[in-house]
Amino acid sequence: MTNLDERIERILTSYEEFGGINLTDNQHFPNRQTVVEVICDLENIIFPGFRENTSIDRESLRFVTGERLHRVALKLTGEVLKAIKYICEISQREGKGCYKYAEQIVLALIDEIPEFRRLSVTDAQAALDGDPAARSVEEVILSYPGLEALLVHRIAHFLHSKGVPIIPRMMSEYVHGKTGIDIHPGAKIGEECFIDHGTGVVIGETCVIGKHVKVYQGVTLGALSVKKAMADKKRHPTIEDNVTIYAGATILGGETVIGEGSVIGGNTWITETVSPKSRIYNCPS
Amino acid sequence: MTNLDERIERILTSYEEFGGINLTDNQHFPNRQTVVEVICDLENIIFPGFRENTSIDRESLRFVTGERLHRVALKLTGEVLKAIKYICEISQREGKGCYKYAEQIVLALIDEIPEFRRLSVTDAQAALDGDPAARSVEEVILSYPGLEALLVHRIAHFLHSKGVPIIPRMMSEYVHGKTGIDIHPGAKIGEECFIDHGTGVVIGETCVIGKHVKVYQGVTLGALSVKKAMADKKRHPTIEDNVTIYAGATILGGETVIGEGSVIGGNTWITETVSPKSRIYNCPS
Amino acid sequence: MTNLDERIERILTSYEEFGGINLTDNQHFPNRQTVVEVICDLENIIFPGFRENTSIDRESLRFVTGERLHRVALKLTGEVLKAIKYICEISQREGKGCYKYAEQIVLALIDEIPEFRRLSVTDAQAALDGDPAARSVEEVILSYPGLEALLVHRIAHFLHSKGVPIIPRMMSEYVHGKTGIDIHPGAKIGEECFIDHGTGVVIGETCVIGKHVKVYQGVTLGALSVKKAMADKKRHPTIEDNVTIYAGATILGGETVIGEGSVIGGNTWITETVSPKSRIYNCPS
Amino acid sequence: MTNLDERIERILTSYEEFGGINLTDNQHFPNRQTVVEVICDLENIIFPGFRENTSIDRESLRFVTGERLHRVALKLTGEVLKAIKYICEISQREGKGCYKYAEQIVLALIDEIPEFRRLSVTDAQAALDGDPAARSVEEVILSYPGLEALLVHRIAHFLHSKGVPIIPRMMSEYVHGKTGIDIHPGAKIGEECFIDHGTGVVIGETCVIGKHVKVYQGVTLGALSVKKAMADKKRHPTIEDNVTIYAGATILGGETVIGEGSVIGGNTWITETVSPKSRIYNCPS
Amino acid sequence: MTNLDERIERILTSYEEFGGINLTDNQHFPNRQTVVEVICDLENIIFPGFRENTSIDRESLRFVTGERLHRVALKLTGEVLKAIKYICEISQREGKGCYKYAEQIVLALIDEIPEFRRLSVTDAQAALDGDPAARSVEEVILSYPGLEALLVHRIAHFLHSKGVPIIPRMMSEYVHGKTGIDIHPGAKIGEECFIDHGTGVVIGETCVIGKHVKVYQGVTLGALSVKKAMADKKRHPTIEDNVTIYAGATILGGETVIGEGSVIGGNTWITETVSPKSRIYNCPS
Amino acid sequence: MTNLDERIERILTSYEEFGGINLTDNQHFPNRQTVVEVICDLENIIFPGFRENTSIDRESLRFVTGERLHRVALKLTGEVLKAIKYICEISQREGKGCYKYAEQIVLALIDEIPEFRRLSVTDAQAALDGDPAARSVEEVILSYPGLEALLVHRIAHFLHSKGVPIIPRMMSEYVHGKTGIDIHPGAKIGEECFIDHGTGVVIGETCVIGKHVKVYQGVTLGALSVKKAMADKKRHPTIEDNVTIYAGATILGGETVIGEGSVIGGNTWITETVSPKSRIYNCPS
Repeated sequence: MTNLDERIERILTSYEEFGGINLTDNQHFPNRQTVVEVICDLENIIFPGFRENTSIDRESLRFVTGERLHRVALKLTGEVLKAIKYICEISQREGKGCYKYAEQIVLALIDEIPEFRRLSVTDAQAALDGDPAARSVEEVILSYPGLEALLVHRIAHFLHSKGVPIIPRMMSEYVHGKTGIDIHPGAKIGEECFIDHGTGVVIGETCVIGKHVKVYQGVTLGALSVKKAMADKKRHPTIEDNVTIYAGATILGGETVIGEGSVIGGNTWITETVSPKSRIYNCPS
Repeated sequence: MTNLDERIERILTSYEEFGGINLTDNQHFPNRQTVVEVICDLENIIFPGFRENTSIDRESLRFVTGERLHRVALKLTGEVLKAIKYICEISQREGKGCYKYAEQIVLALIDEIPEFRRLSVTDAQAALDGDPAARSVEEVILSYPGLEALLVHRIAHFLHSKGVPIIPRMMSEYVHGKTGIDIHPGAKIGEECFIDHGTGVVIGETCVIGKHVKVYQGVTLGALSVKKAMADKKRHPTIEDNVTIYAGATILGGETVIGEGSVIGGNTWITETVSPKSRIYNCPS
Repeated sequence: MTNLDERIERILTSYEEFGGINLTDNQHFPNRQTVVEVICDLENIIFPGFRENTSIDRESLRFVTGERLHRVALKLTGEVLKAIKYICEISQREGKGCYKYAEQIVLALIDEIPEFRRLSVTDAQAALDGDPAARSVEEVILSYPGLEALLVHRIAHFLHSKGVPIIPRMMSEYVHGKTGIDIHPGAKIGEECFIDHGTGVVIGETCVIGKHVKVYQGVTLGALSVKKAMADKKRHPTIEDNVTIYAGATILGGETVIGEGSVIGGNTWITETVSPKSRIYNCPS
Repeated sequence: MTNLDERIERILTSYEEFGGINLTDNQHFPNRQTVVEVICDLENIIFPGFRENTSIDRESLRFVTGERLHRVALKLTGEVLKAIKYICEISQREGKGCYKYAEQIVLALIDEIPEFRRLSVTDAQAALDGDPAARSVEEVILSYPGLEALLVHRIAHFLHSKGVPIIPRMMSEYVHGKTGIDIHPGAKIGEECFIDHGTGVVIGETCVIGKHVKVYQGVTLGALSVKKAMADKKRHPTIEDNVTIYAGATILGGETVIGEGSVIGGNTWITETVSPKSRIYNCPS
Repeated sequence: MTNLDERIERILTSYEEFGGINLTDNQHFPNRQTVVEVICDLENIIFPGFRENTSIDRESLRFVTGERLHRVALKLTGEVLKAIKYICEISQREGKGCYKYAEQIVLALIDEIPEFRRLSVTDAQAALDGDPAARSVEEVILSYPGLEALLVHRIAHFLHSKGVPIIPRMMSEYVHGKTGIDIHPGAKIGEECFIDHGTGVVIGETCVIGKHVKVYQGVTLGALSVKKAMADKKRHPTIEDNVTIYAGATILGGETVIGEGSVIGGNTWITETVSPKSRIYNCPS
Repeated sequence: MTNLDERIERILTSYEEFGGINLTDNQHFPNRQTVVEVICDLENIIFPGFRENTSIDRESLRFVTGERLHRVALKLTGEVLKAIKYICEISQREGKGCYKYAEQIVLALIDEIPEFRRLSVTDAQAALDGDPAARSVEEVILSYPGLEALLVHRIAHFLHSKGVPIIPRMMSEYVHGKTGIDIHPGAKIGEECFIDHGTGVVIGETCVIGKHVKVYQGVTLGALSVKKAMADKKRHPTIEDNVTIYAGATILGGETVIGEGSVIGGNTWITETVSPKSRIYNCPS
């Protein structure tokens, strides 16, 4: 390439000029690829046998699981360490202290796996009950994007709740890219949740969603205001138990509560609280 | 990891407690990765040369095609066999009978390839005609997600119509993840179909779509009721020939028919039959 | 497989019958995989260190960048050459002339890298400012799909503006598949753009978007008419500076202008010009 | 390619004409690649931690080992099954019986792993004792080709002794290619064996080698006669305990015995029995 | 890295200073990796089914073969073209002429495949006859390094005889590395050749070897003089039909002929012609 | 697998019983795969363009080289660090000191690259001069195993001379496996060295080899005594300038000197000093 030298120089200059992000030798961001591998290992631990190419019998299951846990622990601890170091710039913690802290978080996550399994099985059952097209719980686990989005969310939410930066967001963006379902790791979602089709669903950071809630494609649970000053406030709605929200509905605002057992019709636009057992529909055009 | 033994034990217990899915030695689900490879091979058979890194001349085309057919037959027969065995638990068929049956289905699918080609070429032509931004039929085949979603749907639908479980759904979820277009394998779609942009399109299991239909992003062709008891009924609308449905429209219900030649405007909400040649628009806000 | 010969014959016949696309020995389409590799290299040049597995210090940065530029130049020149040859069928240019032309375009793109960096940093800053959930500019670069969609768009738009066929569309479809954001390479987008969540966003070929515009998920900036004869006309709207468009809004038509500083509410449907500083909302249902 | 059809025809004809090896649909040879993967897994089970990229702590060691055993069992059983079926053509065993038999052999091999470990550690110690250039037992395990050749031999010999066809030979050829040491799986080799440098060493099928034997590069322990009728006879020499055989020595014949404690000099040629504690040297030229 | 710039400078200078090999933009060496892929494809064409992971039935065999031939033709033509261009610097042939020439050579090689098959089957039969340890012709094809070395040699020799530079040597070095058998592509070797064990065998450029010759490990068929001026002379021996050469024998000189039916004992050193039916042995030490 | 638990237990017990090698959490051996990658990068730095798939022009050469140096520095420093830590158990150096030391060694190696290039070019020239079959220096660099063995040796020898444990031996075993040439990293080898064919060559730890020496296949430069107590003594011969050693010669002993300009015939056995300009031959049998 002609003038390669000069071309590089201009690019290097642009780093300083635009953004000025400093890379120093010991600084790394968590690695996206590794985070995705961890997610896949966790999915295989939680639902063993569903994506395997070879059979696992009952006796070997314990060892396959142990080996995967070991791998998850090693990889995730490394990434969590990078995330903590990068953001916190806690140079005083650089030594063992920081590593210990990362390790504790990862062990806590591993201890949460039975709970992830429990929640995910309730989600799968809700999907089977709620979708006439679903034929078996196995079919749901194998091919429903909503189930995967929720499972990854529950993992990301756990890390988010422990204060781990960046990684939870990487996880939610991974599954957002795969399913079109964008759930912020901060959102709290109860058991037996069913997100059908899912493309275009957006669930904001401070949402609180109860048990047995059904959400269809294109639903937004968002904020009314996006002022930066609002960052620490509850900006997204609360959805109580047994609510169904049909495709394309938009529900906004941190003080908006959808009361227990309500049904929100498709393409509706809601910015105020709705009392329990309400039926809200758009008039058909 | 400390207490790894104990941690594994708790996870193993959670399998029994939550879901209790039994894995036995001879049971396998169809493998997602293999199903995706089959889809890619079929796409390359149907449109040879579009994704190749090396040239294929006319004489070698026959052999490249033969080799791919052979590979598809081997892989797909294996996966169909697993799907049949898993679901049907027809232990009496475990021997040759079951394999023969899987093989017959795969050969029937291979014999359908010319028809997939024919339909897909009509879809590509419809896209070229319907999108002012499209410059050539090759550009459509190379880069229009709607075309790929329809091609994969036509393959999945064929397997679905033969009673193959799980695999058609894996195929439709693969292309849903890739394109944001969610077409249930049960839907019947006529030739010259054009889905533009596509993200957020949902087409339900019992939809019937005629010829020369155009569908834009965010369109839902869904069910009014999602009661499980409805599983065997027609729950999704019928779209007759030459209908255009603009972005974000929602059409619901198994008895809803959009009459021939109608145009359904964007963001509309339709739950009743529309007579032929109708023009239905939302009033602008 | 029984009757493999005959089955192949029928497929070969279907190529002629349906589509009749001729493959000749010297004709190749640009390769999707290579185009994606080029995109990844360019992203790593523009934001070095964000996806690396190993550290890059300041001194080695220049060489890592140089090596990547070299690789981009080689690969992209090859693909651009194929794109030009395929479409233009400019047999008279087959020799050096055609290669020179491809090389010039690629060098021009490389010289635009500092500008891509500049624009992308303004986009990242806009995201940080506009999303209360964003914690740092690094988090935005690492995990916001809107940022990646815009960066890839800016690259694709540059090639589109140079008259390169097919490749810009491959790039935009790549990132459409990944993010659910569908921006036609022809669209003109100003700096400080923020697309939040993004799934279902569609931005048409002849859109013109000013500076500091915010766009939420499910927004369509589309055409009123899709007649092929309109292909050379401006068919999509103009969005002036400092406009915010909330989720699910649909803005159509080549003469529609959203005036400076306006706010367009969610799920609105707009087909006419809106004066500056307007506030357009759907009435809540 | 011109005349591709005709060219293929001639190749197909050559299969019939030369060799006429019949491939039928259910017949497979054991797969070389899988056999190599099994060898690598077994090496990692026997010497865990030596080739790992990530650390294994004491608690996870059990699970990593279990997962590897499970993988070995699955893969090797499949390959042994193919080997038995192919060679024996025992169609009556095609059902469960044949599989059971393969499984028993593999389980027996797994139960032999501690013995492989024991023998290999004696070999490593012998290398450390016998080579002034060796610095630690770990260095020997990590980088001495003789050690690997012996370990793989011990595994191959076990399968050979169980009557498994082809696979033992694949194993010995794998390590022959890697180290230049060619040990027939039939050879019996005692503990504390040290093969230094190793390139060109050939040890025949019916060799019997005692304990604590040292063998240098280019040594042949071969047959005097290679008549096919000799196939079931002992054709290769017996080497008693504590013998050293220097580089390039050739020892031939099934009745040749190298007596306990003897030293056989380099480039010697021996076809008759040598009494214990002999010193046999070539006169220097 | 500190002073990276300066360190690179010194390396770049060393290119000029030592060797001064000029790399220009259009010059490429044949690619080793591609040459190895071609070899593997050719081996699979010549002995189909021996290394396959999936079954090939009789009907698909023709298409699998056709697809492989097509791939070999494309890859090998490209590499031969590079080899011709690099060495010959025949800039006047740079255009179509040079490509045509490369293509002709590759087609000639493809037409030789039945002959390669024939020869290789005679070699396999000779191995089965000559080695009491061999159990079946399939075992020989699957695992005898001598057979593979001869097959690759026959391919390399064909290209060498057509004047293709570098590639034949790459092929022979590939199989030399794999088997320890070093046959110069120039050597002429008759049918029914059996090289047992093989490590350390060296067969020189101008050797001529008759039919039904057996060669054991460590045999050298070399030159007496290595003066560069001898490059165009016959420098290596002639071995007539039905000769056996035992391990470690050294036969040197272009005028040395080993007469028909002779047996040359191990570790012998021969520099003069030996009459037919001779028995030459080293006296045992 | 039945009784998997018990089987694992027995294997774990065997670790303690046989060898008792302790793996602790922070201990790693250098990784073989990474060491091989470093070797390949170094070979590509020293002879750029010889194994590339894409062209490198003069301007980009500097950056490709820089990027490779950066990669080598990162990877090799990590592996050297592991090697130092493992062997030395210098826990007091665990911190920065140890890393600094590893880094210094790697930088010193990088500064030696021009010298490696210089020496390797003299070796290539010697091969071209010494082998009538060699056609060009490029052919030698591309395909002569002796050249690669010497280049890797020179790199391994440098690290060995700096006291790095294990890694030099991994390097020499890597190239031993590839070429059949076994040179201990401790050996000192002068410029213009040519090892022809090479299989079976063994060069011991304390050998000293002068300039312009030619060595043929199967040559051993070894020790007379292999008593462990001799580990720190010179045990292997000295070969003065301009010596030629033909195939299969064995030269033993630390006090043995082959005088300047001597020619040592094939299959000779030498254990005493040979005066300059000697001609030593085996009498032909």
